Amino acid sequence: MRVLGIDPGTGLLGFGVIEAQKGGKFKLVDGGVIRTNVHQPLDERLIEIYRHLASEIAKTKPTVMAIEKLYFAQNVTTAISVSHARGVAMLAGKLAGLEIAEYTPLQIKQALTGYGRADKKQMQEMVRVLLGLKEVPQPDDCADALATAICHSMTART
Amino acid sequence: MRVLGIDPGTGLLGFGVIEAQKGGKFKLVDGGVIRTNVHQPLDERLIEIYRHLASEIAKTKPTVMAIEKLYFAQNVTTAISVSHARGVAMLAGKLAGLEIAEYTPLQIKQALTGYGRADKKQMQEMVRVLLGLKEVPQPDDCADALATAICHSMTART
Repeated sequence: MRVLGIDPGTGLLGFGVIEAQKGGKFKLVDGGVIRTNVHQPLDERLIEIYRHLASEIAKTKPTVMAIEKLYFAQNVTTAISVSHARGVAMLAGKLAGLEIAEYTPLQIKQALTGYGRADKKQMQEMVRVLLGLKEVPQPDDCADALATAICHSMTART
Repeated sequence: MRVLGIDPGTGLLGFGVIEAQKGGKFKLVDGGVIRTNVHQPLDERLIEIYRHLASEIAKTKPTVMAIEKLYFAQNVTTAISVSHARGVAMLAGKLAGLEIAEYTPLQIKQALTGYGRADKKQMQEMVRVLLGLKEVPQPDDCADALATAICHSMTART
């Protein structure tokens, strides 16, 4: 199973593609971030995110998109901004025929570390270990996207 | 100039297409709402909105999308939900090559009634009068979308 993980955002959207292999192992296929310019109109930024994701999907051919749900304590302006990008990301996956799976930050933490109180560093370290990498993937948004993809692989397996 | 106005929402998204004619008149081309089922997964609802809008654009051939900006006093859960749909709507316009223009509720009120304190009824009545209709377009979401389209035509004209 090949999974595209998404950490949604407008200025910076993290993505990461993993392959779940036999024996419970995972392989990193690709990962990165999509940066858009805060000074550009929102519609330009959204189409840039869409095109980048559509081309990433065409290149890496995942069958599932796993995307982080929003939790809000955060401020409403951020929520609005992230949600525009998140809607576009989900549509990009859907139009490419991917199954879409949503996970809360808590579900992702529990899947990777078995408990819900892991901090950011611990989560990133788990991503590194589970993918068999020497370094934690950079930047954080990419590592978070990979964590979401791993969460889906583990959840779908059980 | 032919303008597609959008009143964004997930459960109910209003749209309306108008044609700005010579002599400062407007003609109603089409209008309605896209309803999606709250019990369906978000990705299904978003692609439904996208497809419906893409087909409306193909049918009515506007050159501009005028879309209401979110103002928030409202609660964050609503803001998140509406923003997903709003992002998808903007992308649908952008992918079809439309110019995208955003207006705040205040800008829309000021364009249609000359002042910012018009109530909902007054706004709808103005939409009816400006489009030369016998009845106010129904439901409210459609009338709001038409108000946004008229706002753009008036703003672009001056």
